[in-house]
Amino acid sequence: MSKYHQVFAWPVRVYFQDTDAGGVVYHASYVNFMERARTEWLRTFGYSNAGLMKELGVVFVVRSMKLDYLKPALLDDMLTVTAQVKEIGRSRITLDQKVQRGDELLTEGEVHLVCVNVETFKPVSVPDVLKKQWD
Amino acid sequence: MSKYHQVFAWPVRVYFQDTDAGGVVYHASYVNFMERARTEWLRTFGYSNAGLMKELGVVFVVRSMKLDYLKPALLDDMLTVTAQVKEIGRSRITLDQKVQRGDELLTEGEVHLVCVNVETFKPVSVPDVLKKQWD
Amino acid sequence: MSKYHQVFAWPVRVYFQDTDAGGVVYHASYVNFMERARTEWLRTFGYSNAGLMKELGVVFVVRSMKLDYLKPALLDDMLTVTAQVKEIGRSRITLDQKVQRGDELLTEGEVHLVCVNVETFKPVSVPDVLKKQWD
Amino acid sequence: MSKYHQVFAWPVRVYFQDTDAGGVVYHASYVNFMERARTEWLRTFGYSNAGLMKELGVVFVVRSMKLDYLKPALLDDMLTVTAQVKEIGRSRITLDQKVQRGDELLTEGEVHLVCVNVETFKPVSVPDVLKKQWD
Repeated sequence: MSKYHQVFAWPVRVYFQDTDAGGVVYHASYVNFMERARTEWLRTFGYSNAGLMKELGVVFVVRSMKLDYLKPALLDDMLTVTAQVKEIGRSRITLDQKVQRGDELLTEGEVHLVCVNVETFKPVSVPDVLKKQWD
Repeated sequence: MSKYHQVFAWPVRVYFQDTDAGGVVYHASYVNFMERARTEWLRTFGYSNAGLMKELGVVFVVRSMKLDYLKPALLDDMLTVTAQVKEIGRSRITLDQKVQRGDELLTEGEVHLVCVNVETFKPVSVPDVLKKQWD
Repeated sequence: MSKYHQVFAWPVRVYFQDTDAGGVVYHASYVNFMERARTEWLRTFGYSNAGLMKELGVVFVVRSMKLDYLKPALLDDMLTVTAQVKEIGRSRITLDQKVQRGDELLTEGEVHLVCVNVETFKPVSVPDVLKKQWD
Repeated sequence: MSKYHQVFAWPVRVYFQDTDAGGVVYHASYVNFMERARTEWLRTFGYSNAGLMKELGVVFVVRSMKLDYLKPALLDDMLTVTAQVKEIGRSRITLDQKVQRGDELLTEGEVHLVCVNVETFKPVSVPDVLKKQWD
């Protein structure tokens, strides 16, 4: 039994730096929040981004993403940002990510990552040490 | 004949602040670049965001967006960021946005905006002064 | 005995969003890290920024700051960001802030805040509920 | 006669991405604005950051900075950000930087840069091709 279908959740507090003059969280800040949750999710499998780059010569880059903004988050909100594997290919992985305030769903995202060589930025196979934990 | 189908283009230079330790532009920075181009595109119709908020009590917020990252932009690159109307509804507007380096297409985006009341964040009709220029 | 001289410490993990193409943390990101630590320090006295604005009609703004960059922080580093009261005036407060990686001091900051009216941005007295905890 | 004492000025427009829920420009955003002006100032001497790194193996990093926030900049403001050499050493350079809205001085900064080797981050002499233009 793998951690595959599990939803990973990461807490994120909203600071001034994340907001804009509309009085709400700026739309690009959710992209930052999702990167934090993905990175911490990756860490649960024993790998940091720096570690992947140095030890295995690969890095996961965002190939595409889709974001739906349902309700705005506000200054000082305590949010939960999730990451859950949806699909895994040879060099690609699709994650579902949500930003919630308690039970309220604020933003929904689908993020496609590609594992690339850190020098050439060409797609390479997801390292086996990760793949066997995800399959 | 309106400015409807015209492609608006805005130059953006890449600084350290836009890049990350992967040596390329950080994926959320393109979202910032696109906001700049949309704002300058709006300005060609006689309106700033601050003006819309103060004079008409409305603001355009991002309801959803889809981004495809094809090639990475690099430090010191001179980019062209475009905005072009794709579809207009009562309170919604869809824009196609591209980030290019010369003829190379680096990132492609589709951004759905909703015109909302600045107090309630509820959708309202796009102001006529804008709509008649876009139709 | 007050919490006055105590050093408040807040953990901050470094993500790609905080780094630049030089391979290290971007110099403005430390300013963000320090805002997070100050905000959490304020929270220990029972107040959020949103709460101060809504309930008391005031907000703390940065009047000046001085930063010394001694050593660079790196991707995936786990940092400790501190905040410690140095001096308190009628409407001003000076904080010492440090960014450390374990015992290594990476960045040192001195931040002067002013308590201002949220509408006029004019300086006002620090609310008594805070002042009596800080004196 | 060198460009030494000249004030270099660079225009910066304020977008939502630069502001915060206080309704003004976020204090770390001025740090970004100043980096843009410094980079464009460097470009007038024939060098980009990427060029310095690749061709000469050096990069200018911020060693310390001091910022005074006098008046807030607002959404949609058109700002002028300046850079002017104050002092030059073997490997260091001090710049005065200002952020203005027309004649109004909003933020004042003093930025100390060090020229470092791009691999070791150890201080090295400012390249002669730049030094002879600055002296």
